[in-house]
Amino acid sequence: MPPLGLLHMRAWASLFSRLLRPRGVVCIREVHFHSQVSEAVLTSQLKPQHEKSNFIIKTPKGTRDLSPQQMVVREKILDMVIGCFKRHGAKRLDTPAFELKEMLTEKYGEDSGLIYDLKDQGGELLSLRYDLTVPFARYLAMNKVKKMKRYHVGKVWRRESPTIVQGRYREFCQCDFDIAGQFDPMIPDAECLKIMCEILSGLQLGDFLIKVNDRRILDGMLAVCGVPESKFHAICSSIDKLDKISWNDVRHEMVAKKGLAPEVADRIGDYIQCHGGVSLVEEMFQDSRLSQNKQAIEGLGDLKLLFEYLTLFGIAEKISFDLSLARGLDYYTGVIYEAVLLQTPAQAEESLNVGSVAAGGRYDGLVGMFDPKGHKVPCVGLSIGVERIFAIVEQRMKTSGQKIRTTETQVFVATPQKNFLHERLKLISELWDAGIKAELLYKNNPKLLTQLHYCEHTGIPLAVIIGEQELKEGVIKLRSVASREEVAIKRENLVAEIQKRLSES
Amino acid sequence: MPPLGLLHMRAWASLFSRLLRPRGVVCIREVHFHSQVSEAVLTSQLKPQHEKSNFIIKTPKGTRDLSPQQMVVREKILDMVIGCFKRHGAKRLDTPAFELKEMLTEKYGEDSGLIYDLKDQGGELLSLRYDLTVPFARYLAMNKVKKMKRYHVGKVWRRESPTIVQGRYREFCQCDFDIAGQFDPMIPDAECLKIMCEILSGLQLGDFLIKVNDRRILDGMLAVCGVPESKFHAICSSIDKLDKISWNDVRHEMVAKKGLAPEVADRIGDYIQCHGGVSLVEEMFQDSRLSQNKQAIEGLGDLKLLFEYLTLFGIAEKISFDLSLARGLDYYTGVIYEAVLLQTPAQAEESLNVGSVAAGGRYDGLVGMFDPKGHKVPCVGLSIGVERIFAIVEQRMKTSGQKIRTTETQVFVATPQKNFLHERLKLISELWDAGIKAELLYKNNPKLLTQLHYCEHTGIPLAVIIGEQELKEGVIKLRSVASREEVAIKRENLVAEIQKRLSES
Repeated sequence: MPPLGLLHMRAWASLFSRLLRPRGVVCIREVHFHSQVSEAVLTSQLKPQHEKSNFIIKTPKGTRDLSPQQMVVREKILDMVIGCFKRHGAKRLDTPAFELKEMLTEKYGEDSGLIYDLKDQGGELLSLRYDLTVPFARYLAMNKVKKMKRYHVGKVWRRESPTIVQGRYREFCQCDFDIAGQFDPMIPDAECLKIMCEILSGLQLGDFLIKVNDRRILDGMLAVCGVPESKFHAICSSIDKLDKISWNDVRHEMVAKKGLAPEVADRIGDYIQCHGGVSLVEEMFQDSRLSQNKQAIEGLGDLKLLFEYLTLFGIAEKISFDLSLARGLDYYTGVIYEAVLLQTPAQAEESLNVGSVAAGGRYDGLVGMFDPKGHKVPCVGLSIGVERIFAIVEQRMKTSGQKIRTTETQVFVATPQKNFLHERLKLISELWDAGIKAELLYKNNPKLLTQLHYCEHTGIPLAVIIGEQELKEGVIKLRSVASREEVAIKRENLVAEIQKRLSES
Repeated sequence: MPPLGLLHMRAWASLFSRLLRPRGVVCIREVHFHSQVSEAVLTSQLKPQHEKSNFIIKTPKGTRDLSPQQMVVREKILDMVIGCFKRHGAKRLDTPAFELKEMLTEKYGEDSGLIYDLKDQGGELLSLRYDLTVPFARYLAMNKVKKMKRYHVGKVWRRESPTIVQGRYREFCQCDFDIAGQFDPMIPDAECLKIMCEILSGLQLGDFLIKVNDRRILDGMLAVCGVPESKFHAICSSIDKLDKISWNDVRHEMVAKKGLAPEVADRIGDYIQCHGGVSLVEEMFQDSRLSQNKQAIEGLGDLKLLFEYLTLFGIAEKISFDLSLARGLDYYTGVIYEAVLLQTPAQAEESLNVGSVAAGGRYDGLVGMFDPKGHKVPCVGLSIGVERIFAIVEQRMKTSGQKIRTTETQVFVATPQKNFLHERLKLISELWDAGIKAELLYKNNPKLLTQLHYCEHTGIPLAVIIGEQELKEGVIKLRSVASREEVAIKRENLVAEIQKRLSES
């Protein structure tokens, strides 16, 4: 019997995150990417009345453009994520957007229907990549690479049901870090969890929890509960639905639809409500049923070692061994994990869903599926659900009213006089050549006020002003846009003075 | 009559670059991306004997993985290109990898057959984007944006003939910068050329030349030579082939295949051999035939103004007015340009082709094609042929034998003793938490020599070594990998000392 005393450990957090966790999909390294719907997409979706004219301008269903504001947020977050991957010694890899269709078949189980295929225009049959993991495994096998720590940031495509209102997109960005190679147990696995913690802490998204389980413990649990092996996949799919539906409904599905005996379902129900720290691992070792299962014991042994390393990394308190975590059945062979954000109900009343923001696990068999001789390369990795994170940060900035600068322009070149375009062009060229980020208005004779408004509106900190007087005296007026203070600087000293001001600010 | 005295101006350069210029394709902003074939691709292409087994591991035809070495080169070049775009005040935009198929139709003329379509899996008909320009125009029209300076770095896909030996890929990266909006003439156009010069100079690719022409001058020239308007497109296609085939062959095509009178072809032949600086613009103004054509006069007037601005930018000597430049007929409405590298024959004997590395022009009608009411937004822009540039830089590094570090790891955590994994993990965790890039071997008991070899092999500059002695004394040995010097540092000072060393190097 599972230890009932543990049922309430982190229960509020787990329950809450489960309620709000997005639809679980059984596939290799599934991370759920949600995000606010941009106005442009909504607008284009909301114009069905134009459907009959043959000219609706829109992006394809489930996709969207990313505005300069969104790109600024993204780049900051990606810099931080990539910085962490580099801190852990990863190399960068890139693979084509599409793969031979056969490379993707039999990799994603019931999700294969979500793969985008390319039209047969003669030649090879191709599909857009569904994740970054299968292309990585294909790369390792193709190049006979036995050992590699790599990261990959790129788009993937999935023909998800068009629940755009829920913020699910068909094109989204993934950030993956993986360690391939035969090493001593659980050291790379622990590093993956450390990386997830570093990224989620670094992004200051609030409190989070990483649920951990092991494919072998899951299988062992199902076996000792009396589930026939042929039903493991189907039952795991049901367990994975605990995010969205209650245990009663999951139990009903297991019994009524998947033909489990009620008492078998109840035994599973007892186990999957367990979550806790390393002490739960110890208790499961003592569990009368589980302790009889070789696979489960192996998994528990590895989890114990994992917790040892996580303690050394100072992150054990962020990790919860959770027997209900049943993700990525198709390829995961060992430890699996998923990070969820913990929010108080008050915060959650904002329109954003809370849920999985990172996930991963060990997949020791995938590379072997590509190798003609079946040579295996053990792998473990993680995927950061950056789309979810982008959405959270965007939402926060919106709520706080924080203004985002979408350009980095440092200096604006202005004139109060007519017919000064030539002088402006000469001046801005000097600035560009000195590496200074500079703009001017593309007008022959813009008004000074218009020029200064442009600086204030776009957040350019400095303006240089050239007129007849300045030209005669060999000076340029340097204006601080915020304070409106102006000083005359000798033209030959202008670049140095600007660089000094910029380095001070 | 065109001024024959100008025929030899820069003739060697132009001829040379023409001979080596890759296949010209008439389309909006066509940049030719060539690149060395990676070994992995070659290998996979060279295994037709496996074709009948149902398991060849390869990337799709015309695509390739990018290795960590390649990614390092790419990131450096992209940083530089993006740095320049930001220096000129551009915002970043992103669009989906695919568009509604109808968005791309009637945009690329005879190249439309190269568009990748997605399979009809129910719902909308989709195509992979062919360039970044059409999606930008679609974005402007869809969001009713009348003014925007944006850059976009992303992949595009074209089903080019599989001449991989020539280094042409079906998936490649583009870096585009565009200015949309109604402004005073030629100011944004001049900035685009300035940007091309800054990037090509900054990348130190050797001498280069930017050919400039104007769609209106081309059309005017064809008109005054006696080409019927219905044949403008076809004749321009022929002119564009001057890269690959001789004037005699082009002339033959015009006369025999496209039905021009021989004397009409000869008149064209006289014009398109002209190239020179601003003085050629002046001479064309005096040309007895061209000066009768309103369109040509408009184009020449703009070119004159353009050269004025280019002189102020200090780049006029890099620009050649070239009447044979006939690119991008479908959408270009005004000035067009293309940058070519100038190499001495000795250098060109390296396996790399030399050719177009950047291109662009003015397209004032494209946004209007997307707008239901046909509202126009004038645009001008450029595309950097980064794949060509990547290939050149990769080739150079290969020739020079320069070793590329593919990780940025600063510190390696080592031990000379057995059973020190726990101490290593604690120590590396401290380093990671301090933002230091650190690695260790995923072994319980690695040999010290193996650990130090790893540092030397991967170029890690510092190693920290912890053993029983150090643990007892509360110190860590800090080793400079290059000099092999070791000093003992108090553990509490270790991070500060490492940071000091790293900032000095």
